[in-house]
Amino acid sequence: MKKDLKDMVYGFVGLGLMGGSLAKAVRENVLSVADASGRIFACDKNRTVLDLAKKGGIIDEGFSAETADDMISACDFVYVCLYPHATLDFLTNHGSFFKKGAIVTDISGVKAGIVDGLSETLHDYADFIPGHPMAGSEKEGYIHSSGAVFSGRNYILLPQRTTNPENLVLFKELITAIGFTRIIETDAETHDHKIAFTSQLCHIIASALVDSAEDEKITEFGGGSFEDLTRIAMINAPLWSELFLANKKELLDHIESFEEALDDLKELIRWNDGKGLTKKLENVRKKRMAMSCIDTSA
Amino acid sequence: MKKDLKDMVYGFVGLGLMGGSLAKAVRENVLSVADASGRIFACDKNRTVLDLAKKGGIIDEGFSAETADDMISACDFVYVCLYPHATLDFLTNHGSFFKKGAIVTDISGVKAGIVDGLSETLHDYADFIPGHPMAGSEKEGYIHSSGAVFSGRNYILLPQRTTNPENLVLFKELITAIGFTRIIETDAETHDHKIAFTSQLCHIIASALVDSAEDEKITEFGGGSFEDLTRIAMINAPLWSELFLANKKELLDHIESFEEALDDLKELIRWNDGKGLTKKLENVRKKRMAMSCIDTSA
Repeated sequence: MKKDLKDMVYGFVGLGLMGGSLAKAVRENVLSVADASGRIFACDKNRTVLDLAKKGGIIDEGFSAETADDMISACDFVYVCLYPHATLDFLTNHGSFFKKGAIVTDISGVKAGIVDGLSETLHDYADFIPGHPMAGSEKEGYIHSSGAVFSGRNYILLPQRTTNPENLVLFKELITAIGFTRIIETDAETHDHKIAFTSQLCHIIASALVDSAEDEKITEFGGGSFEDLTRIAMINAPLWSELFLANKKELLDHIESFEEALDDLKELIRWNDGKGLTKKLENVRKKRMAMSCIDTSA
Repeated sequence: MKKDLKDMVYGFVGLGLMGGSLAKAVRENVLSVADASGRIFACDKNRTVLDLAKKGGIIDEGFSAETADDMISACDFVYVCLYPHATLDFLTNHGSFFKKGAIVTDISGVKAGIVDGLSETLHDYADFIPGHPMAGSEKEGYIHSSGAVFSGRNYILLPQRTTNPENLVLFKELITAIGFTRIIETDAETHDHKIAFTSQLCHIIASALVDSAEDEKITEFGGGSFEDLTRIAMINAPLWSELFLANKKELLDHIESFEEALDDLKELIRWNDGKGLTKKLENVRKKRMAMSCIDTSA
């Protein structure tokens, strides 16, 4: 029988900012039709969050961390919404409890470590298709989750050699249904290389810029540029430390390329090369304008 | 007789993005009351822009660059909205044509060069109070101007030894009337030091980040961080080249401090110092959250 998104049982492992936002998006966009028979389960070590989500009508049932296996064995689609190392640990330790043929995915911001670290046997139990929803917030926890944050965003998918094509189609339907507008398919190495630039390097730069501010009153002299560049410096420190270290080589390479570009500009200024500076900035403007960017003003 | 904002004659020298936006804001907020007798003049080398502004009801009369003196001799309040060097040139060459006692201001993003470069005699003719409205756009020209862009923004004022206190009060009334919420008073050196950080360094970083991007398709892998960090890299190249070089020493100092902060982060990553990295990022988060930032989402 062909699976239908509206009749599936979804399980969220970890109901934080991302798990909560994804669960809400599924509830609001997929299970809101009259004839939907699908359900949403979630497991989290925080009982209060589970109660809140159940009371709010987002999940149908909450499971403690200890009873995670009870949950995942009943789910057609499992979203593992944990930090990178915890994701690998969960998949390694609980892999054999997934429902046979279930679609399983994650949201980790680094991929090679997970894909390479997994035992091949996981694929005997479930169809693990790693993914990376490109949306977030400087706020943390279920309390700040929202089903609306995925609108217009990018989703990166990493189909595996073992991926069932029908499951991939179904997964993409889900991604589109919850608001994403662009799905990129790639491999773990390419993902980690590109993400080290678009995401991790940006967070490093924002953090360094805040760190180098003389004092907290400097913003009185600002026009918004500093704010826009440093919003992401309100960072989830443990999560991002883990991401940076897990993608160390790629990230260090990008930092160094950025430093070279910065050095080029610095030298043009140091030597009063107005003509060279104008030319460089004109090229930068053209390059940025040619980029197909998502609208982040929402 | 006490001067009243609604009855004054305003002159804008240069009707580009900023001159146009300021003229529109004055028209919409100050001269919109029923009993206002004030008028708005503008002079620009581009006749089409003047015609457009007159047809749109923003200015009452347009003047060519050649007849600038006719205009400024009739104005109670002159806004010089030119690039930094052109601002100094204009004030130097036309200073003796200002109406006696008129308030004159500028919008230049660097100040020491202008304040130090002006002849003391300017103050015999007019009350020159340098200023810096902290608002802008990556778009250029009168066509993209808007009277609404100043809402909630910062304005930096540089009262001079010769400033008439009544004029300063009036100027602040105008600034508040057109939407700004915070007025900072400072001197040229402090201005240039702080602005080199909040504005110029941010533009340099954004430009270097775009420059270091491998290709224009990288944004397919992005979640919005890169977009937020690089919007200002759609830069007005000649204007910003001039600003960077005019504030070279301060800017180079800030670039170097930023590079040191970046290096600290890089070393923590290189040596896998997860504990040190988390601690650093937690401090950055706290520092950024303690900053009183303007809302740039509008």
